[in-house]
Amino acid sequence: MKISYNFKDSNLLKQALTHPSHKSCNKNPSYERLEFLGDKILGAIIAKYIYIKFQHSPEGHLSLMHSNLVSSEAINKVANKVSIGEFIIMDKGEENSGGRKNANNIENVMEALIGAVFLDGGYQESEKFVLDLWEGTFSRDDMMHKNPKSLLQEIVQKSGKSIPTYEVTKKSGPSHESIFEVCVTAQDIGSAHADGNSIKEAECNAALKLIEKLNLK
Amino acid sequence: MKISYNFKDSNLLKQALTHPSHKSCNKNPSYERLEFLGDKILGAIIAKYIYIKFQHSPEGHLSLMHSNLVSSEAINKVANKVSIGEFIIMDKGEENSGGRKNANNIENVMEALIGAVFLDGGYQESEKFVLDLWEGTFSRDDMMHKNPKSLLQEIVQKSGKSIPTYEVTKKSGPSHESIFEVCVTAQDIGSAHADGNSIKEAECNAALKLIEKLNLK
Repeated sequence: MKISYNFKDSNLLKQALTHPSHKSCNKNPSYERLEFLGDKILGAIIAKYIYIKFQHSPEGHLSLMHSNLVSSEAINKVANKVSIGEFIIMDKGEENSGGRKNANNIENVMEALIGAVFLDGGYQESEKFVLDLWEGTFSRDDMMHKNPKSLLQEIVQKSGKSIPTYEVTKKSGPSHESIFEVCVTAQDIGSAHADGNSIKEAECNAALKLIEKLNLK
Repeated sequence: MKISYNFKDSNLLKQALTHPSHKSCNKNPSYERLEFLGDKILGAIIAKYIYIKFQHSPEGHLSLMHSNLVSSEAINKVANKVSIGEFIIMDKGEENSGGRKNANNIENVMEALIGAVFLDGGYQESEKFVLDLWEGTFSRDDMMHKNPKSLLQEIVQKSGKSIPTYEVTKKSGPSHESIFEVCVTAQDIGSAHADGNSIKEAECNAALKLIEKLNLK
């Protein structure tokens, strides 16, 4: 595992790598508490990064980028670059059932490592550590990986409502450069209008507007 | 408003206090972006605080205390101590509809202020700022305000399942100091057993065990 931080307290590193299955768990605590801490520290670091980088993005955009950058998928992508799975301390049973490739284990250990660096070296060091690891994921594609329409659908379905509906409410301009206006409606949540140069673009913009409204509630 | 931090950049303070309704919003940005940032910074600060203070609490306890300490209720309690509502910059319409006492507005401005202190003074200053304000809320009562049973019910209901059921599975010991074993079961989620000196205590312990299991998934 090639990480850009040297621990002063190697016990913290060991704890961050220790799966709960590990037999001598009582003596050597597992990563669970550090994972709790690291999750929150990661959230703060990524929030600061995108807040500063995207000075003109409204809150809804920032939330969208944030959820993509701290998603299980993103964390696994980053963790696999440094082959975290190979270094997890686990018992034979967990290992034999594929524990080293288990996405949950990998995510948990990555978060625990961030928590451990934060405790060992402070906020600044943990920020350096995270930004260094996350560097390759800051492309627009990664950050907008889950587009506003999918994200809105996820939010709506989590609260047990039916999926949002989209309707073209206006078309204007000459045919080769039409502007479409779309209205999105989500059950019990509300609706939002937005324009775009294609129906798809207008739908995405409308979904984003509705997500922003939700974030402000 | 008596807060323990002097801003170097007073524009950040102003932005944190500016409600989106404020007319000149285009020139003076509102608190929404800062609120996004402050929410995550608050989460990290509180996580560190309870991680260090409760060295022997398992992750489930930490999560429970954390959600209580960053709940809307807790944020409003803290914000009202320094009368934040009186200082929000808002338009007449918002003011006339009770905007200064609106719990959402108060929560948003409190989070935005934390974001502003963080940007203005760095992590350490924002930590001092938050811990100073939150000081009175760190009693066990406040942190455990929402007990494990209510929290488990909330988690389960959010995912659209029916409420968890509790069953006494064992009673042992002499009648004046009986020990009860309770099993809690939540639909599609799983079950957990725990002991207690009363049925209520055993139920709480079982709920907590199940929450911990969920957090580790």
